[in-house]
Amino acid sequence: MKLATLKNSSRDGRLVIVSRNLQRAMDASTVAPTMQYAIEHWSQVEPGLQALYEQLNADQATSSFDFDPIQAMSPLPRTHQFVDASAFLNHGNIMEEAYNLNVKKTPGIPVLVQRQSDDFMGPCDDYPFPTEADNADFEGEFAVVVDDLPMGSSAEVAESKIRLVMILNDVSMRTHLFRELQMGFGFINAKPATVFGPVAVTPDELGDAWQNGRVNLYMRVSRNGEWFGNPNGREMDWSFGELLAHLAYNRNLRAGTILGSGTVSNKAYRSVGSACLAERRAVEKIDTGESTTPFLGFGERLRFEVLDDQEQSVFGAVDHRFVSSSRKT
Amino acid sequence: MKLATLKNSSRDGRLVIVSRNLQRAMDASTVAPTMQYAIEHWSQVEPGLQALYEQLNADQATSSFDFDPIQAMSPLPRTHQFVDASAFLNHGNIMEEAYNLNVKKTPGIPVLVQRQSDDFMGPCDDYPFPTEADNADFEGEFAVVVDDLPMGSSAEVAESKIRLVMILNDVSMRTHLFRELQMGFGFINAKPATVFGPVAVTPDELGDAWQNGRVNLYMRVSRNGEWFGNPNGREMDWSFGELLAHLAYNRNLRAGTILGSGTVSNKAYRSVGSACLAERRAVEKIDTGESTTPFLGFGERLRFEVLDDQEQSVFGAVDHRFVSSSRKT
Repeated sequence: MKLATLKNSSRDGRLVIVSRNLQRAMDASTVAPTMQYAIEHWSQVEPGLQALYEQLNADQATSSFDFDPIQAMSPLPRTHQFVDASAFLNHGNIMEEAYNLNVKKTPGIPVLVQRQSDDFMGPCDDYPFPTEADNADFEGEFAVVVDDLPMGSSAEVAESKIRLVMILNDVSMRTHLFRELQMGFGFINAKPATVFGPVAVTPDELGDAWQNGRVNLYMRVSRNGEWFGNPNGREMDWSFGELLAHLAYNRNLRAGTILGSGTVSNKAYRSVGSACLAERRAVEKIDTGESTTPFLGFGERLRFEVLDDQEQSVFGAVDHRFVSSSRKT
Repeated sequence: MKLATLKNSSRDGRLVIVSRNLQRAMDASTVAPTMQYAIEHWSQVEPGLQALYEQLNADQATSSFDFDPIQAMSPLPRTHQFVDASAFLNHGNIMEEAYNLNVKKTPGIPVLVQRQSDDFMGPCDDYPFPTEADNADFEGEFAVVVDDLPMGSSAEVAESKIRLVMILNDVSMRTHLFRELQMGFGFINAKPATVFGPVAVTPDELGDAWQNGRVNLYMRVSRNGEWFGNPNGREMDWSFGELLAHLAYNRNLRAGTILGSGTVSNKAYRSVGSACLAERRAVEKIDTGESTTPFLGFGERLRFEVLDDQEQSVFGAVDHRFVSSSRKT
């Protein structure tokens, strides 16, 4: 099943069903008015949403319309908890080698970062930021949305509570990131609003690509229309279930909690490239002593998309332009 | 004006008006069904809520009832963003001296920590945690709730958007805290669910005690009925407006965002005591080389309350017992 949220001037938008090929959409409000409502009442609404989805794919929906991602908000335009992992150790290893970072990780314990969830941006909306001196960067990631998960749940139980899978651009301001990382308290100015791809899909929709609590698909990242990287999600060092279990060690996770994977990163980074500028710059520094790829300037366009084995877009694309917040249109 | 949220088996509870003396309450649903709704529609609902508050205080409300804090949830049982500051530098200074912490702070830039906001606990609910080996601690704090605040807002604008003031116990698991702080990515297992005092009050309700964007009142902390400390909120090194402006540097803050002060801590800590165990233990270590005050055990009771200059409770009390999550009743 594929779901999206369209703009309607409310904070939570309106829920729509999207066809498997992402071409058509139909209103879902007879079953669930918003994505948040759907997640909070999943067992009641899932059969009704699934029935609509089958009608739409069979071209039997009476009132469908063209799906326009420009009209989409993030699938959850806001929620009550967003945690981002750094679950591809390959990325951290490259960063630590290039910059002699002394990150005191404990072997076996994943890095998770508590993040804000009050103001996600739409996948095609202009992305405003104050100054290029902040060294703007992107991070292509996968994420899951979970139902209520009680404190102390196992990885297996956690995985069974994953309702939706999404992609995102975890926008990062590197000037602030290194300062805030050294301070120890996580990210504030380093991580402004996050942007999710337009369509959230149920795990079953991924078929064989959903394996071991990981998305076994390539994240295609392009910068100003040029290929930047296409690492695969299968190399996560922890499954989403394992990450959720760590998070739920001593707290309940409530319906709508989003957990991100961290920048997708592969050991074969020399052939598949990277999903963020910082990693490519780190590889350059390791290889030549100098980073040459520039951070984002105003007016640059980023695109993140995942194709299935039929070369069909699974989640639609995050496709947006970075602009000056003082010149925001 | 004083507001609270009572349990009603929904995730957001139901909004009630509470009398100034905290004795009586009345339903507010004719004006706003939930606290979140009230914050999101503040300019429309504030006059109606104020009218009810005046009726209640004048004993003219037709359907008031006794206010029972045991029935209260946190004023916002969940919201979309919670950020906690560490705005009393005195606390950090004591901790750094005692434990030779090398926190790389930048002078002038406040420490803020992004936190989860999906599952706040009620002020009198038993607080479950997995094991005493986690070194459970409390932190008495003040907090504010803000309306929508656009990216780039000044401290003055931010302060004008503060709608409510609250108190909280920022529960902390010290075993995890030192490990996570060294890692640099903020807190996960170190900071389980937060607990807010039962009653949220508008800044005007504080009268002269609301000065320079700070709460000039003493936070009385007791452990198992014994005085533990009563530091004053006036020594915050940044105002709430200044902290909010730092947070809003490159992001919008959406209505319902909660900002905490960090552990209340005063330079006269030898006379006023502390609002958390870690600080008292740090003072012991500085004085004698050894910390003797134990962390929390199962069954211990904590109470946090703030009195005005008439010795009247302003926010009601966080008054709860710490219990084993495996023996949760």
